Amino acid sequence: MPYVNIKLTREQDPITREQKAELITGVTDLLVQVVGRGPGTTVVVIDEVDTDNYGVGGATITERRKQGK
Amino acid sequence: MPYVNIKLTREQDPITREQKAELITGVTDLLVQVVGRGPGTTVVVIDEVDTDNYGVGGATITERRKQGK
Amino acid sequence: MPYVNIKLTREQDPITREQKAELITGVTDLLVQVVGRGPGTTVVVIDEVDTDNYGVGGATITERRKQGK
Amino acid sequence: MPYVNIKLTREQDPITREQKAELITGVTDLLVQVVGRGPGTTVVVIDEVDTDNYGVGGATITERRKQGK
Amino acid sequence: MPYVNIKLTREQDPITREQKAELITGVTDLLVQVVGRGPGTTVVVIDEVDTDNYGVGGATITERRKQGK
Amino acid sequence: MPYVNIKLTREQDPITREQKAELITGVTDLLVQVVGRGPGTTVVVIDEVDTDNYGVGGATITERRKQGK
Repeated sequence: MPYVNIKLTREQDPITREQKAELITGVTDLLVQVVGRGPGTTVVVIDEVDTDNYGVGGATITERRKQGK
Repeated sequence: MPYVNIKLTREQDPITREQKAELITGVTDLLVQVVGRGPGTTVVVIDEVDTDNYGVGGATITERRKQGK
Repeated sequence: MPYVNIKLTREQDPITREQKAELITGVTDLLVQVVGRGPGTTVVVIDEVDTDNYGVGGATITERRKQGK
Repeated sequence: MPYVNIKLTREQDPITREQKAELITGVTDLLVQVVGRGPGTTVVVIDEVDTDNYGVGGATITERRKQGK
Repeated sequence: MPYVNIKLTREQDPITREQKAELITGVTDLLVQVVGRGPGTTVVVIDEVDTDNYGVGGATITERRKQGK
Repeated sequence: MPYVNIKLTREQDPITREQKAELITGVTDLLVQVVGRGPGTTVVVIDEVDTDNYGVGGATITERRKQGK
């Protein structure tokens, strides 16, 4: 019963329902393959975070996008 | 001053303001009763997560609901 | 299947195995009583944090203890 | 490459884009100054939480505001 | 630059350094494949939690093991 | 009463008690200066993570160090 939390930015073109399902299935399968844990019980939570609220290297993602980074 | 984070799904019939208050009071009282900690300072954060963003056993809650799980 | 994370300080007299079990049972029961969720699937993780690594109001708990707070 | 998560309440007068940028720059600079870590790689995520979902000392912030706390 | 946190129990036979590396590589690759994000910047933190500190369905993992669950 | 969690690697030469205190004071002051929040109530938790358990760009920090990154 591992617990996985994935945080990524909510872009103007946000990730789709299918992509979320794929991430949840993929990370659950990965845990089964690598450490044999939690096929039926792994909990995965995906947090989509506004680009104003997500920073890397001292700047928000919104700013970094404007700077073409 | 314990810190508690509760994550649960945001359903079509989401939990009410009163239920959130009850969870916050309840978990704060529990910590006082069991470990005598933080009656006045315990911080509790409740995260309501979309059922597309919440997975158990490799499937999103949205899918599991469709499968009657 | 809610997920609950409890963070509290690891004191010289740390909380016992029984107290941890009581916290886990208590918070799981609370979620069932208040929002009818996850009797068999709620995941609870308790993090015990060194008092040097835990701060409130700008000071570490180690310092606050020395100041009798 | 430290990771920092800041949770604070989303008030009627929420914090501005500029304030978020300032928090991200400030905490990144702090880590560089104090422990010389991650000038270009520190990840910062700011979570703004509804006052019904944020509790201190057993009551929601919404209630505490009503009580003038 | 997604951020991923994986929490799992620290067993008597804990996961190896190689397995941790495989989980980190695997979840980073998954994010690239599924949502095309962060090949060089994804941050992954693995937390290994004592079985006394990890609960599912109201009981600690230590107890569940004794009950053969 | 903001909550801040800082995760960074536990190196062979780990950060000192004084540096932890400085981070806690610094981030608390930053929140007061920038958003006027929580001078006496901000909770800060610092997690020191083993370099085998911390990954960036698909590799553990232990491996990246060996590769001189």
